[in-house]
Amino acid sequence: MNGTGFALIARDGAARRGRIATAHGTIETPAFMPVGTAATVKAMWPEQVKATGAEIILGNTYHLMLRPGAERIAALGGLHRFMNWPGPILTDSGGFQVMSLAQLREISEDGVVFKSHIDGSRHALTPERSIEIQHRLDADITMCFDECTPFPATETAAAQSMRLSMRWAGRSRRAFAERPGYGLFGIVQGSTYPELRAESAQALADLGFDGYAIGGLAVGEGQAEMFRMIEATEPFLPPERPRYLMGVGRPLDIVGAVGRGIDMFDCVMPTRSGRTGQAFTRRGTLNLRNARHQEDPRPIDETCRCPVCRDYGRAYLHHLFRAGEMLGPMLLTAHNLHFYQALMAGLREAIAAGRYADFAKTWAAEEASGDIEPMPDSLEGGNGGA
Amino acid sequence: MNGTGFALIARDGAARRGRIATAHGTIETPAFMPVGTAATVKAMWPEQVKATGAEIILGNTYHLMLRPGAERIAALGGLHRFMNWPGPILTDSGGFQVMSLAQLREISEDGVVFKSHIDGSRHALTPERSIEIQHRLDADITMCFDECTPFPATETAAAQSMRLSMRWAGRSRRAFAERPGYGLFGIVQGSTYPELRAESAQALADLGFDGYAIGGLAVGEGQAEMFRMIEATEPFLPPERPRYLMGVGRPLDIVGAVGRGIDMFDCVMPTRSGRTGQAFTRRGTLNLRNARHQEDPRPIDETCRCPVCRDYGRAYLHHLFRAGEMLGPMLLTAHNLHFYQALMAGLREAIAAGRYADFAKTWAAEEASGDIEPMPDSLEGGNGGA
Repeated sequence: MNGTGFALIARDGAARRGRIATAHGTIETPAFMPVGTAATVKAMWPEQVKATGAEIILGNTYHLMLRPGAERIAALGGLHRFMNWPGPILTDSGGFQVMSLAQLREISEDGVVFKSHIDGSRHALTPERSIEIQHRLDADITMCFDECTPFPATETAAAQSMRLSMRWAGRSRRAFAERPGYGLFGIVQGSTYPELRAESAQALADLGFDGYAIGGLAVGEGQAEMFRMIEATEPFLPPERPRYLMGVGRPLDIVGAVGRGIDMFDCVMPTRSGRTGQAFTRRGTLNLRNARHQEDPRPIDETCRCPVCRDYGRAYLHHLFRAGEMLGPMLLTAHNLHFYQALMAGLREAIAAGRYADFAKTWAAEEASGDIEPMPDSLEGGNGGA
Repeated sequence: MNGTGFALIARDGAARRGRIATAHGTIETPAFMPVGTAATVKAMWPEQVKATGAEIILGNTYHLMLRPGAERIAALGGLHRFMNWPGPILTDSGGFQVMSLAQLREISEDGVVFKSHIDGSRHALTPERSIEIQHRLDADITMCFDECTPFPATETAAAQSMRLSMRWAGRSRRAFAERPGYGLFGIVQGSTYPELRAESAQALADLGFDGYAIGGLAVGEGQAEMFRMIEATEPFLPPERPRYLMGVGRPLDIVGAVGRGIDMFDCVMPTRSGRTGQAFTRRGTLNLRNARHQEDPRPIDETCRCPVCRDYGRAYLHHLFRAGEMLGPMLLTAHNLHFYQALMAGLREAIAAGRYADFAKTWAAEEASGDIEPMPDSLEGGNGGA
């Protein structure tokens, strides 16, 4: 395949500094993709998303097929025009959300039949239909339709599920219409079994894709296990293609995964936690709802250069969340996305300068030095819709 | 008094084109003030409010004294800094909200004792305390503390209530610390009784204020009665001071009131209706939740030059409201505020060019030609918090 281009600009150990070329623009990697589930990155105007430094956003096949419908978006000029995001878009295939959100799902060799979580209506997703929907949305990067293996899974169940996903990857590849600037990514499965991960990566590499994702992680296995799975997979992924770790993650998850050869990430954490009052800082997370912030004029993070940290104090953000004002989620989402993009920019610079290891060490030390308020459980490990 | 300045730039019949000078900047009149009840114009970043053309916003003494507290805002540098709005701010005195929102209120000659609608805590507002709070907030324009006369009221009840407000206006004036750039406005009451309105306006003019508001209207009396009350009041208001019609209103209410000598307006209508899916257009209002918009690629109003009409179609806005996405209220609030500010800019231009009458006639004809979807009842005539 040769839809989306990928140029490797620098390497520093296993860490990579690259550039992806798509129909709607280029993406500097390592890259973080904000999640725009239902044709909007929640609480943000698209120009504000761009101003954080984001170059590509993620959309969700599952949500968009149910509402407003892929055919309707196509008739309105595609997802970019519909939501006023002229830059690159990657769409998830629906495989993950069908398992986490839909009701009464039945999986067969053909695909998945399920009921909508919105209105109970009956729908089907197959590899062919998922690819068709992503084509209608005009996604720059299309993901293969896969089964999200439940966690934990026995090795037998994980193998069966992974091999079904590999057959679906073949069908996705055949259904995909190759066009310059439009790419199709395969998704490695295999739960927490290194041999299955290797088998899956090899199977996808044999088929040949524009990029390779690692799926089925950040589901509760923990960071050490996640890193072990990346290490088991990475040697089998063609180095000349971008690698995407799906649904990850916390800042230190991203730093560690970049050091293991990952180029792309998405996660609901900065957006979802922004809506619940959680702010990311270099010294850990703050919960702005906490009463200790109510008279504090300091910005969220004194080292941050985002417009929220420039113009607003913690006391004001605390007030907005206490009063239930929409501007609270709006400001905190903007800060968190800026924070994530600043992390990615720092990683890109460090790799280009050959000082990834220093960067990673400093980041971990600063985060450990801080006064971290725990994230709510619901934010742990989720890689569902934003 | 000589706190805020007012320059009359042009007259066209009774309509006036002017400029108010305050400590935090100037305001071209006729002016519309977006409502920022709880230290935020809901769903808008302050720079977006400014980008609509707004030069002054309104804050609410009642809401801010309860949460986060006037003394806390003062300690944090005042309301402008707290909420990142460097321009002029007018604060309501709390008189209206105490009657419409608070519980168990008891009115005496001294003031009002009430329970907070947020947590049931007991508070008191007197003319002196209201002025003190507005001083701590650092309001450019402070409003006298008044009693909001219930509607309808007998002439006897309206007279008693108005005369109490006039005594409170005297106390407010004595409590107000005069400073250059900071103004105090009196509020005319008198329900729907022309003689009481005249008496009230005369009483305030005798005391002398930086500006004169007309309160207690847009409470259900209807547009014709509202215009009649403005006409009964206007001759008694000093022409060299700005006049502010509180809590008004619909576009044609504003057009008509400007033609009767009013310079300033505030209303929750553009912000509140934006949050519920109602959009203002030259041809009436649209309800974006309505299914007829679901495949319509047109902007809200093809004649509108706001960023929402430039970049988004009705189908997308419909989708956002159906999906419960925050961006729906954000975009529609921005459009509605742009729409109101464009109306004010049109009025200012028309008055300066001596063609107010044409402007008013054209506006009324265009609105009447349209396909107006009725506003929900809850939006009719309210002038409470945003």
